[in-house]
Amino acid sequence: MAQKPSIPKGTRDFSPIEVAKRSYIMNTIRTQFQRYGFQPIETPSFENSSTLMGKYGEEGDRLIFKILNSGDYLGKVKDDAFAKADSTALTPQISEKALRYDLTVPFARYVVQHQNEIEFPFKRYQMQPVWRADRPQKGRFREFYQCDADVVGSDSLWQEVEFVQLYDAVFTALQLEGVTIKMNNRKILSGIAEVIGASDKLIDFTVALDKLDKIGEEGVTKEMLAKGITQEAINTVAPLFTLDGSFGEQLKTLQTLLANSETGMQGIEELTFINEAIESLGLESAKLQLDVTLARGLNYYTGAIFEVAAPEGVQMGSIGGGGRYADLTGIFGLPNVSGVGISFGLDRIALVIEELNLFPKETVEGTKVLFINFGEKEALYAMKAIKSLRTQGIVAELYPDKMTSGKHMKKQMTHANRREIPFVILAGEEEMTNKTFTLKDMRAGEQETVTLDVLIERLR
Amino acid sequence: MAQKPSIPKGTRDFSPIEVAKRSYIMNTIRTQFQRYGFQPIETPSFENSSTLMGKYGEEGDRLIFKILNSGDYLGKVKDDAFAKADSTALTPQISEKALRYDLTVPFARYVVQHQNEIEFPFKRYQMQPVWRADRPQKGRFREFYQCDADVVGSDSLWQEVEFVQLYDAVFTALQLEGVTIKMNNRKILSGIAEVIGASDKLIDFTVALDKLDKIGEEGVTKEMLAKGITQEAINTVAPLFTLDGSFGEQLKTLQTLLANSETGMQGIEELTFINEAIESLGLESAKLQLDVTLARGLNYYTGAIFEVAAPEGVQMGSIGGGGRYADLTGIFGLPNVSGVGISFGLDRIALVIEELNLFPKETVEGTKVLFINFGEKEALYAMKAIKSLRTQGIVAELYPDKMTSGKHMKKQMTHANRREIPFVILAGEEEMTNKTFTLKDMRAGEQETVTLDVLIERLR
Repeated sequence: MAQKPSIPKGTRDFSPIEVAKRSYIMNTIRTQFQRYGFQPIETPSFENSSTLMGKYGEEGDRLIFKILNSGDYLGKVKDDAFAKADSTALTPQISEKALRYDLTVPFARYVVQHQNEIEFPFKRYQMQPVWRADRPQKGRFREFYQCDADVVGSDSLWQEVEFVQLYDAVFTALQLEGVTIKMNNRKILSGIAEVIGASDKLIDFTVALDKLDKIGEEGVTKEMLAKGITQEAINTVAPLFTLDGSFGEQLKTLQTLLANSETGMQGIEELTFINEAIESLGLESAKLQLDVTLARGLNYYTGAIFEVAAPEGVQMGSIGGGGRYADLTGIFGLPNVSGVGISFGLDRIALVIEELNLFPKETVEGTKVLFINFGEKEALYAMKAIKSLRTQGIVAELYPDKMTSGKHMKKQMTHANRREIPFVILAGEEEMTNKTFTLKDMRAGEQETVTLDVLIERLR
Repeated sequence: MAQKPSIPKGTRDFSPIEVAKRSYIMNTIRTQFQRYGFQPIETPSFENSSTLMGKYGEEGDRLIFKILNSGDYLGKVKDDAFAKADSTALTPQISEKALRYDLTVPFARYVVQHQNEIEFPFKRYQMQPVWRADRPQKGRFREFYQCDADVVGSDSLWQEVEFVQLYDAVFTALQLEGVTIKMNNRKILSGIAEVIGASDKLIDFTVALDKLDKIGEEGVTKEMLAKGITQEAINTVAPLFTLDGSFGEQLKTLQTLLANSETGMQGIEELTFINEAIESLGLESAKLQLDVTLARGLNYYTGAIFEVAAPEGVQMGSIGGGGRYADLTGIFGLPNVSGVGISFGLDRIALVIEELNLFPKETVEGTKVLFINFGEKEALYAMKAIKSLRTQGIVAELYPDKMTSGKHMKKQMTHANRREIPFVILAGEEEMTNKTFTLKDMRAGEQETVTLDVLIERLR
């Protein structure tokens, strides 16, 4: 077996440093989730296929990883499925379970299944991996973590206000200052669709409008016309081309434009409430911005739509997103339960923090001190000290293999250097007699001989 | 869709309280792992089937969950696999990936794959779920967490010493005092096999000997004879029936018994070293015990064998185990790398802590204070205070929906009660005018009106 083993494409091994960095981000998010009163749940990695299939569209169904039934799974298969060699027809006969594709559908399933134990409104967070059989590419993996916070069972717009604050709190805590929280509302998009008189062209419209910065008003108009949006409609929504000023001022412009759309006006009212509350409460480091081109998840969001952009200057897609869906649990038989939630894109946030060099030094700190192993007696002397250090919360280790030569001494020192352990203890016969320890600072190169108490003081 | 949704058998949803309890255990284990210098890694949930298959025996292969290839997976299948409807033959043709069955094989794969980046000896820990298509039963699940710490690349017995200390440290930190760390050594078992002159009867022998407490010497002898162990062999190992005294004293008895077995004597020497080191270093709350009937993982362990029993009086199988394997990575082409490791049984530990009522009260503490929502203005006033409280690390929430009647007021108070939120804030017009907050202690039933500063002080 000379061939080096490998892992499936689109998956990753995480080294100690990578785990430490990811844990730092996840712990920061978790701390804020909890501070905002969200409670953790966890759901199984695989669900019954019937729970997942048909919830993410045809493309989604294809991207769900299916688990083969155990045992003689072919025993129950109807003959014609073989004869036709039809994978799609065979799959439901040989696979009953599938890996979770996101956290939202399992959460909806959880809420319905446990509705009698849950006290509503229910604020839950969930940080677990999901799996998608997508074609892997830079920054897109087949296994990745989602970090979601949602509230179910309340229509209150204070939830949206709180999610803006929560985004701000998390990114401030991560020292990722200057992110832009973009907001839109499905009802404003519906209003625009009414105004342009073609709701089926809405996506084409927002996609084109989104290019305003790049291709200018003329380019956008050209693209809209090419997509079949009439010149008359374009004239009507002309104010959108020059939407400017603060969140509140832009909402005023929209108010004129969407005056005849009841739905549109409701969207404006909602955003006005959220914007005014946030203006009054203040944000630490994020900016809140209206973005009428924001149309993510158009199919399921019914109210607020969120998306977070990395600080200016960092090339990166959205690092978070979310929105409100009026009927989260209807698919599982519990209608009229409103949900609103946001998600944090762990992988992308890690890339941004890496690029901006914002991981705190402590994140990757491991062992603080390595005791050189001179031999059996010295090792026992060391282990007694190590026990005391660990009790004090100091990460201490003995080099496991005892010294066999001067060359081996160098090997132990090199081990400390390679692992970037900042301190080394040399404790031989003399130190044992005097009940002392020679502490070497690997960076400064200096060393001093101290008692255990002083040692603890130095290392703490 | 009237049918309530469910989850696959053998899997579990974890409610907020359950997640909190499990996190408490995992965080405690993680803290000690880190304090002992172990570094975290994470591997993908699924591996290439070739990495896993054939590593756990035939039964293991059957219990591995296989993932169906994506797309038209039948396209590449050879015709006769269909014709025969042979599941076993078809599986490798339609499935290339499988869910991880344990953390040891993926770790061995990781070490070989990343051998050039790893500084040996490498102390790693890993806490991730594993999946087994086992028949679910009480305490046995199809998805469960393993918490493993291993060292590779060192033969030093100080590792074994450290693992005994680590078990002691974790269970002491969990306040689970009085666990028994049982130790044996594969070499002692080999020695016994030599002495009874039948290495193929070793398991029968240890299984019978293990029943000594229950069925007595006579019963054990009877069972051994029934299994084909000769009366002569039984006479020879008679000292094992009355093995008594301290770890060291028992080793002395074994020394006489296994005097002619070189391997056996080596096992005694190893255990003597470990026992003497532990006697010299001391344990906080665990007991270290020799158990010559301990034969778990006989197939792969080559040196030390560990198993941890819950404190006396608690009915529960082992809550941890491990051992040394001389050749961990040979299966992936990197021979002669010794590994030694231990594992913590999260689910069973949780059950024991639950039974002994040892979860700290703080474990399940959630939101500290709920602000009653009297209306829009009051809610904004509340949200400003909540912002300050959260900045101080106090978990505070606004009831999201505003009050519409006196009945609704009661609903909000009931919400606080059901969620066991200990404090509620009532802040209406009067409080807003006076810049105060009326704080109600839900347990004591008392209330007082205070400024924000005093409020923070009370709640912190």
